[in-house]
Amino acid sequence: MQLPSTLLIAFEVGGTVAFATSGLIEAMRKRMDVVGVFSVAFASAFGGGTVRDLLLDRRPLFWVEHEGYLWLVLAMAVTAPLWLSVALRQTGARLMVLADALGLGLFAISGTSIALTAGMSPLVSALMGIATAIVGGVARDVLCNEVPHVYRDHRPYALCALAGSAVYLGLTALQVGSGWASLAGVVVATGSRLLAVALGWRLPGWRPREP
Amino acid sequence: MQLPSTLLIAFEVGGTVAFATSGLIEAMRKRMDVVGVFSVAFASAFGGGTVRDLLLDRRPLFWVEHEGYLWLVLAMAVTAPLWLSVALRQTGARLMVLADALGLGLFAISGTSIALTAGMSPLVSALMGIATAIVGGVARDVLCNEVPHVYRDHRPYALCALAGSAVYLGLTALQVGSGWASLAGVVVATGSRLLAVALGWRLPGWRPREP
Amino acid sequence: MQLPSTLLIAFEVGGTVAFATSGLIEAMRKRMDVVGVFSVAFASAFGGGTVRDLLLDRRPLFWVEHEGYLWLVLAMAVTAPLWLSVALRQTGARLMVLADALGLGLFAISGTSIALTAGMSPLVSALMGIATAIVGGVARDVLCNEVPHVYRDHRPYALCALAGSAVYLGLTALQVGSGWASLAGVVVATGSRLLAVALGWRLPGWRPREP
Repeated sequence: MQLPSTLLIAFEVGGTVAFATSGLIEAMRKRMDVVGVFSVAFASAFGGGTVRDLLLDRRPLFWVEHEGYLWLVLAMAVTAPLWLSVALRQTGARLMVLADALGLGLFAISGTSIALTAGMSPLVSALMGIATAIVGGVARDVLCNEVPHVYRDHRPYALCALAGSAVYLGLTALQVGSGWASLAGVVVATGSRLLAVALGWRLPGWRPREP
Repeated sequence: MQLPSTLLIAFEVGGTVAFATSGLIEAMRKRMDVVGVFSVAFASAFGGGTVRDLLLDRRPLFWVEHEGYLWLVLAMAVTAPLWLSVALRQTGARLMVLADALGLGLFAISGTSIALTAGMSPLVSALMGIATAIVGGVARDVLCNEVPHVYRDHRPYALCALAGSAVYLGLTALQVGSGWASLAGVVVATGSRLLAVALGWRLPGWRPREP
Repeated sequence: MQLPSTLLIAFEVGGTVAFATSGLIEAMRKRMDVVGVFSVAFASAFGGGTVRDLLLDRRPLFWVEHEGYLWLVLAMAVTAPLWLSVALRQTGARLMVLADALGLGLFAISGTSIALTAGMSPLVSALMGIATAIVGGVARDVLCNEVPHVYRDHRPYALCALAGSAVYLGLTALQVGSGWASLAGVVVATGSRLLAVALGWRLPGWRPREP
């Protein structure tokens, strides 16, 4: 069952804004120049969806079909000096956490829905949703020369995306309308991520004794 | 000439298990959490073949067509705490070397064969074989924030893949049956890699005097 | 309006030689072995155009269609010990700067032209031109485990590519012949890059006070 296209666009715009913001914050921390800031914002915002579209062989790419997304991130990057440091001063690290959690939920469900529409199996659809949700952040961190944050955060992140995707897939299989199913999925993914950060839930590490 | 599909699947399963194992070992060394371990295992196992399929424009991707590969790596990652540290304690670093060498040979020949079947020239087919064999390991190391091991190992690795691909291409051109040709290719690639490690063969570095 | 194909090939050969040279220089600095040197030269020379072709879904890839490019970079890598250290001793760091600036201009315009021919909008075409021009260098630096140079150079680089693409797109829109338009674009992109380095033009960093 396909997401109504206005809802899908709303999800994608929200996720794009959220991840572009997280990219802008990281690039500033690294004291990058204008071009670095743009590139990292682009990679964060469009990396996940682009990889999904390449893997699914979807053309035009979502940011070619909706060129407005490009203008949006351009405008955010150009105006960032006006609003970002103010926003950061008022919210501290919480802005990054909130932007990331929102992007996570919105992209996980939009990615899962797009893959399902393209005829993928539930497992592959969930993986595409997770990829849409986390590849942008991984690209951001690789470009900033860090081990991807998501891999050593030791708090659930991709697992929250998986939980949201599973809820969406489950409700869809139960014939729940795709609008409600997708909202439930986003709430589960974003909400569980925010709870995980607020309550300090930790994932087990893998710590074998080395021989 | 096309590889018989059962042989191709056997090669791909073997290479997937081998590279997933190498990814699991690396991720553990980096003390990653569960999600990091999964991602690195996936990137190691599927990175090379996915890049090959994208470059050749093959769809469905091999792990979409054979979804069992995904379940296999999932199962390996989930059960890794049960067997991996025991296996490492009993084999030491040799397990990593062996898994890597096996994956190298199996993926090099399956990649070369797939590219040849897709109508590529021998040079491009050999490059696709090498890419299938080494991109997974490169992705693993980039995700772990290291200079890819294969680039500074100073022992033949990609060259072993090239040797195996060349043997396979040569025997195929001589009308040897593709089953025998591929077995010979795997033996040459994996065998030369194991010999290189055992005997300490070294590649020349490129050491110009800086001006 | 399409670039005459001989001009396009000349641009691509020139850019390939220039970026392969920059990759060879970087790989040598990192004391990589033969395979590392090859891979980094390949990634530098073909990374940008390959990403462009994947995003545009163009097949065969430009280096599959023109296999001579592969042989060219192979020959450059094999013979590099004969000429590269001599060339470096005589030109110092200037060879790297010149090769990079030339590659930048040639790939920016060829990428923009190819995207425009594929029916992309001017904004997307300019982005594809920039991607063609900078992704090779980014791949080179990620493989060498460095923050991409272009992101923290604090000198205009991608902006020079953008300026060249804009000139090309503007002149093409004004019905100037595509040969002249492309030459003007290359001169603007490469020339502004060389001027930026020579005169020490600096890009503003993004330096918000952290809250």
